[in-house]
Amino acid sequence: MTLKLFELVGLDGARPFSPYCWRIRMALAHKGLDAVSIPWRFTEKAALAPYKSEKVPVLLDGDQAIADSWAIALYLEDAYRDRPSLFGGEGGRAMARMLNAWGDLAIVGGIFPLIIADIVSQLGPEDQAYFRKTREARFGKTVEEVAAGRDSAVIGFRKSLDPLRLTLKAQSFIGGEQPNYADYIVFGGFQWARAVSSFALLEADDPVYAWRDKLLDAFGGMARNSGGYPV
Amino acid sequence: MTLKLFELVGLDGARPFSPYCWRIRMALAHKGLDAVSIPWRFTEKAALAPYKSEKVPVLLDGDQAIADSWAIALYLEDAYRDRPSLFGGEGGRAMARMLNAWGDLAIVGGIFPLIIADIVSQLGPEDQAYFRKTREARFGKTVEEVAAGRDSAVIGFRKSLDPLRLTLKAQSFIGGEQPNYADYIVFGGFQWARAVSSFALLEADDPVYAWRDKLLDAFGGMARNSGGYPV
Repeated sequence: MTLKLFELVGLDGARPFSPYCWRIRMALAHKGLDAVSIPWRFTEKAALAPYKSEKVPVLLDGDQAIADSWAIALYLEDAYRDRPSLFGGEGGRAMARMLNAWGDLAIVGGIFPLIIADIVSQLGPEDQAYFRKTREARFGKTVEEVAAGRDSAVIGFRKSLDPLRLTLKAQSFIGGEQPNYADYIVFGGFQWARAVSSFALLEADDPVYAWRDKLLDAFGGMARNSGGYPV
Repeated sequence: MTLKLFELVGLDGARPFSPYCWRIRMALAHKGLDAVSIPWRFTEKAALAPYKSEKVPVLLDGDQAIADSWAIALYLEDAYRDRPSLFGGEGGRAMARMLNAWGDLAIVGGIFPLIIADIVSQLGPEDQAYFRKTREARFGKTVEEVAAGRDSAVIGFRKSLDPLRLTLKAQSFIGGEQPNYADYIVFGGFQWARAVSSFALLEADDPVYAWRDKLLDAFGGMARNSGGYPV
């Protein structure tokens, strides 16, 4: 049975850029599973309606459809339990939930204002209009106004990575000696940024930079070779 | 063999108040282990010198001495592996390291300025002098100056708990249906505050408040009955 994954793209259908889709793309590779990518754009709500979702990722596995990255990760862990574990046991599965929340808030929330204008430039006209309308309502500012402060905002973002930085002083990955889903949660945000923006999120001497490099190289360089800007 | 735990106290030798010692006090209870408390004060460096530490917690287990809360947690997990697990497997053990870093930075670091002046009032003269000298050097301000902004600083602290708050929408504890060491990491900070300060860190309708209540009640109300202020 072929797995299929709806992944967010813009003008370039071969360059998926959702942080949540990248969590799952890495999780699939961790499990040694292939999935056919179905490129999906912001305004293609109708394509997801049969699966009761308005957002990606949506994973199709035979006659099952699973929406939401966290739900998909749990599904993959349970449905493919003979494959390498994403969580390393029940404790990791529970704790990853909090790291997932941290990833949503500190990583996705922290990176978004820094790359928001770059996202616009990767979208076709209809998606641009949709993205501007929904995101500008959320921020109460234009995309350009949000992005204008990024040279100072990035300093706060880097500081917010201190818990990860401290962790990487003690071990190679959040998951320990090898990466697991906790790493993919965080990495997804960096891969999202890299797909659409050349803005330097990290300084080259940051342990987080070296960690990201290892994940860019993982699975035969899957993430590094998926398009986007060199970082 | 009786376990012994050096725990930070002030004027009241029966009211331990280190966030790191409380992590271990809860971990010991989780494992069903008793430990004799050895009250220790900031300036009693000589008492710890035989164990090659200048800080508590230090755990003595027969002829072994283990310093540092994280090292002690790992020791307890490995030395008492037939007892309930603190981490729930290898994945949890690895991920708890990052939650430990988050606990050090967001919880201990976030609470400290809010209760720093209250700590002083719990100390004898010699400890007060030591505490003021070392902490005022760290902040570059007097204790009173640090504490002066706490009514506004607490708002930022509460906001910083969002990853925990999001987690508690989905599950009862960071550790899942039952608490584990990840919960004790965070709870230790709240118990530290409660031991020395009546300042309200949390609003009563906050899910974090309800979570803290459950941990105050855990192990027969061990934390709630250890002295300190009602919260």
